[in-house]
Amino acid sequence: MIKLQRYKHDLPVSYALGATLTFELLRCRKDLVTRVFIQQETRDEGGIHEILGFCRENGIPIVESDKAFNLLSPKGNCYVIAEFRKEEARLSGGNHIVLVNPSDAGNLGTIVRTATGFGMTNLAIVRPAVDFYDPRVIRATMGAAFHVHVEYFDTIEDYRKRFPENHLYAFMLTASRPLPEIAAEKQLPFSIVFGNEATGLPERFADFCQAVIIKHSRDIDSLNLPMAAGIAMYEFTKDRWNE
Amino acid sequence: MIKLQRYKHDLPVSYALGATLTFELLRCRKDLVTRVFIQQETRDEGGIHEILGFCRENGIPIVESDKAFNLLSPKGNCYVIAEFRKEEARLSGGNHIVLVNPSDAGNLGTIVRTATGFGMTNLAIVRPAVDFYDPRVIRATMGAAFHVHVEYFDTIEDYRKRFPENHLYAFMLTASRPLPEIAAEKQLPFSIVFGNEATGLPERFADFCQAVIIKHSRDIDSLNLPMAAGIAMYEFTKDRWNE
Repeated sequence: MIKLQRYKHDLPVSYALGATLTFELLRCRKDLVTRVFIQQETRDEGGIHEILGFCRENGIPIVESDKAFNLLSPKGNCYVIAEFRKEEARLSGGNHIVLVNPSDAGNLGTIVRTATGFGMTNLAIVRPAVDFYDPRVIRATMGAAFHVHVEYFDTIEDYRKRFPENHLYAFMLTASRPLPEIAAEKQLPFSIVFGNEATGLPERFADFCQAVIIKHSRDIDSLNLPMAAGIAMYEFTKDRWNE
Repeated sequence: MIKLQRYKHDLPVSYALGATLTFELLRCRKDLVTRVFIQQETRDEGGIHEILGFCRENGIPIVESDKAFNLLSPKGNCYVIAEFRKEEARLSGGNHIVLVNPSDAGNLGTIVRTATGFGMTNLAIVRPAVDFYDPRVIRATMGAAFHVHVEYFDTIEDYRKRFPENHLYAFMLTASRPLPEIAAEKQLPFSIVFGNEATGLPERFADFCQAVIIKHSRDIDSLNLPMAAGIAMYEFTKDRWNE
């Protein structure tokens, strides 16, 4: 059992904050759950009751601990917390999303949610990058975190060595060929590649990727990262969802 | 001159917090700016200098006021604030986005930013709804707020009476016809209609709108509202940006 403490990158566990996330975690990956924390005063609440029943049936320890909430949810708007083991995922072959140096927890969570929606459940992340298991990322996925496989790579070259068969499509504001045109002629398996929120992808990515642009007016500098990634995933996968 | 106070819905002015927003406001709509607040200690900072020069050239009052920052930006991460007059916009004809009961400031800001990107600069909002002029909305637009026309309506019927020629496309999880199919046969002028973040659109919208769905896997309940709206705007406008 891990000593209860604030989340840190090098802990072997992370935390799902709130009933909705905890439900989804128990439904999808109960094998990962190590214990569930509840507060003393709210133990009889509706959704909580069902969660506790599920834990008892499945031999998952239930721990009454106000300390857990003070440490992990200082804003106090959450009444149940599930502790779960992190999994070292290895991507399988097929289509991927590749995020190079994503830095914002909320953005990564939103991308994971959208990716799950479009069936793109294999994500490669190139370091330095935000920690996928940061509870803020897990929360922002709205439960989608428990449907995806995420693997970190030190460099894009490491990723390319592992998946030499993948066709890389890099989203860059300096690209000339637009998304609809590229998506219509895409080759499988594909990897759609996005850079950091503030700086985008280095120009050298155009040397080994097909560069793509989502065209828009000059009245904005760029779409935000989750929006661009969501539109790209929609366009690249829509044959599958609309046949 | 308005007495300096925390932003409220019924004030005739709102506030652009930070240098980036203030720049964009001065660039696009200097006619709206009533005064610019700076803090005593940061008056010589780089970006600020340029803003102050612009204000002097254009006869916009510069006010040194730490009180303004305490009231309007209590988190303290902003060094310039522009006060600007709200404008009672009236939508013009053409294509529109219609948001029915949007409740989240950040979401509305993100939608406005994306809409500006895709040239859909006329937004109708049906009450009850978050206040477009809330400084949190203005901030989340990243400056796009100063490119759009936003008009509030009490009911969707009021909107329909004003724009009887518009073809309404309502995004609903209960719809059967998918976005790519509908977008391919869209009629102009079009209005793309989205409901509240949590509750979506009432079923009755299918009686006077073409219902549309963005198909996705069952592993998520729904796309988030800005994502769905962004994908819809991309698909409805992509001929224009990619011809």
